[in-house]
Amino acid sequence: MLINTLFLGRFGSSKIDDELLMRIEAATKKPVHHFLKREIFFSHRDLHSILNLYEQGKPFYLYTGRGPSSSSLHIGHLVPFIFTKWLQDVFNVPLIIQLTDDEKFLWKDLKLDEAKALSVENAKDIIACGFDKKNTFIFSNLQFMGECPSFYGNVLRIQKSVTFNQVKGIFGFGDSDVIGKIAFPAVQAAPCLSSTFPFIFGNEKVPCLVPCAIDQDPYFRMTRDVAPKLGYLKPALIHSSFLPSLQGADTKMSASDLNSSIYLKDTPKEIKNKINKYAFSGGRETVEMHREKGGDCNVDISYQYLKYFLESDEELIKIEKAYTSGNMLTGELKKILIESISKIVKEHQTKRSKITDDDVKEFMTPRKLT
Amino acid sequence: MLINTLFLGRFGSSKIDDELLMRIEAATKKPVHHFLKREIFFSHRDLHSILNLYEQGKPFYLYTGRGPSSSSLHIGHLVPFIFTKWLQDVFNVPLIIQLTDDEKFLWKDLKLDEAKALSVENAKDIIACGFDKKNTFIFSNLQFMGECPSFYGNVLRIQKSVTFNQVKGIFGFGDSDVIGKIAFPAVQAAPCLSSTFPFIFGNEKVPCLVPCAIDQDPYFRMTRDVAPKLGYLKPALIHSSFLPSLQGADTKMSASDLNSSIYLKDTPKEIKNKINKYAFSGGRETVEMHREKGGDCNVDISYQYLKYFLESDEELIKIEKAYTSGNMLTGELKKILIESISKIVKEHQTKRSKITDDDVKEFMTPRKLT
Repeated sequence: MLINTLFLGRFGSSKIDDELLMRIEAATKKPVHHFLKREIFFSHRDLHSILNLYEQGKPFYLYTGRGPSSSSLHIGHLVPFIFTKWLQDVFNVPLIIQLTDDEKFLWKDLKLDEAKALSVENAKDIIACGFDKKNTFIFSNLQFMGECPSFYGNVLRIQKSVTFNQVKGIFGFGDSDVIGKIAFPAVQAAPCLSSTFPFIFGNEKVPCLVPCAIDQDPYFRMTRDVAPKLGYLKPALIHSSFLPSLQGADTKMSASDLNSSIYLKDTPKEIKNKINKYAFSGGRETVEMHREKGGDCNVDISYQYLKYFLESDEELIKIEKAYTSGNMLTGELKKILIESISKIVKEHQTKRSKITDDDVKEFMTPRKLT
Repeated sequence: MLINTLFLGRFGSSKIDDELLMRIEAATKKPVHHFLKREIFFSHRDLHSILNLYEQGKPFYLYTGRGPSSSSLHIGHLVPFIFTKWLQDVFNVPLIIQLTDDEKFLWKDLKLDEAKALSVENAKDIIACGFDKKNTFIFSNLQFMGECPSFYGNVLRIQKSVTFNQVKGIFGFGDSDVIGKIAFPAVQAAPCLSSTFPFIFGNEKVPCLVPCAIDQDPYFRMTRDVAPKLGYLKPALIHSSFLPSLQGADTKMSASDLNSSIYLKDTPKEIKNKINKYAFSGGRETVEMHREKGGDCNVDISYQYLKYFLESDEELIKIEKAYTSGNMLTGELKKILIESISKIVKEHQTKRSKITDDDVKEFMTPRKLT
């Protein structure tokens, strides 16, 4: 978790410490999610302010998003959604999910229609995570911009408050970048202003908590700069680290390399083969050496994945002890992971197969939430 | 008309010459507008291509716009609209008018609601010019962006094709400009693509002719660069020079200096006072010298305004002769202008007073045109 520590130091977000975890448990009267205990969500900005609001019975909402760059998500993409669902469940608050199909159109070799179609496909995967239909609004930028004038209005208000110099510093844009990319950060920022959604919040200025992967922090650092100028509280944030690729820790899964990730569309056989073939092992060169010295959980991808996806703390500790002591071999560890991931993927596929186009339409209709 | 000649040389548009005027008359079987004969509309790009289409019975449409920066237009603002109405009448084609309230929000110290309200006020002045309701669609960017996803789609397609370097070169943007300004040119360009208006043009790619004041040419130079990359013809253009301010030729009327212009809201008394007090005179210092040497029509604002607003060629020539020979004094010339402008403004006010909010709504409703 070295990069996490580096991040906290460099960009001035705050570590999620035991005290904060205890405060969350006290406020929600529920045990915290294992993503919090295991420092997968490890960093935050202003989470205390959100807890203050919650304790005072005042409203806030959740906002997260997804850039639909491929038709199937990989299991790393699930992490923020699993956690966001947990947040929605324990806090019982409205949730807004932005599909940045405009961003993918600008950055990728995609046509508008292709980007829109990916939004619908991704929406199904997201809905399959079990979000509460009565309290969740999912929107595609390409569609919602043409449905709700307050969205464009807030995008403009942000675009009027941010200079090229600023986005150059934050995102590294240069003079040869297209103007669509330069303007886009405001589109991701706008949903942090509750007035973007008058059909949900009316005229009320409702504060916002954004669960997201750590690479999205620059967008919200920018938003936190701008929001007070427009009369809003800074959005609060809670950041996750990345699920590493099968090939090794401290790398991000890539949608362009099918063997770097396990996809939600993969068959049990594909999952088994990928893990057996590619999952980087922290085991020793020979069985003898492994029995003697034990495996290294810090670099072992199978163990790392179990940290994300095995809910039982007890089991995880048992596995860690057995692997570190050399009692458990890499093959045995991989077998546990294969079972665990196959089960998650299969359950997801079952749920997803039941999501109809009508469900997608309902989630994506601008409407009042409860 | 020195700046006009300079413009043609520098930016490579074409002069509207006698041959082209004759071609327009032959095609439309109508005498050309006096704005054309008097070189007020003096420059074009690809007008011959539009005439080719017209002669072949193929469709094209007109697109022009207005940046609603003040609640009342001045008479200079009328010029492109008077001419556009004439184009619509003689060619009988659909007309699209963009109100760039988003631009004014970005550039001026205006709130979103103020910018939107100016759009409605300006729409009334524009409608009062007599446009055909069945064949004219007026839209405010702030409103239409939230009504029609194809608008945002085409804005993005253009924003994906234009770099910061390009808008820097064309519009002189710098690193300290806000990203809204940098992105805006695509919003003005998008209506040149007929697919922005599927409710009017369906799937047909219909070419576009843009009548505009010469200062808007940079937007359409940019658009002409981009359009072919997106599978469209370059928009054709026809450019007007500026009505000079009361204070002197070769200056532009300014909405911020009430005494530089005659507003469509001005009373007869205000019009009389402004012209008598401020209209720069080409007359001589004393009556005796004027009688001897005659006035200079080239710098005389009253004469210049009559070139714009006095339709009768005969009368204009008579006035020119009388003034140049010294027979007509500045006071007499001003009297003619006062009568002429007062009549135009009064007629405009009468027409405008009859425009209802329902009329505005009808013109601004996305719909099929005839």
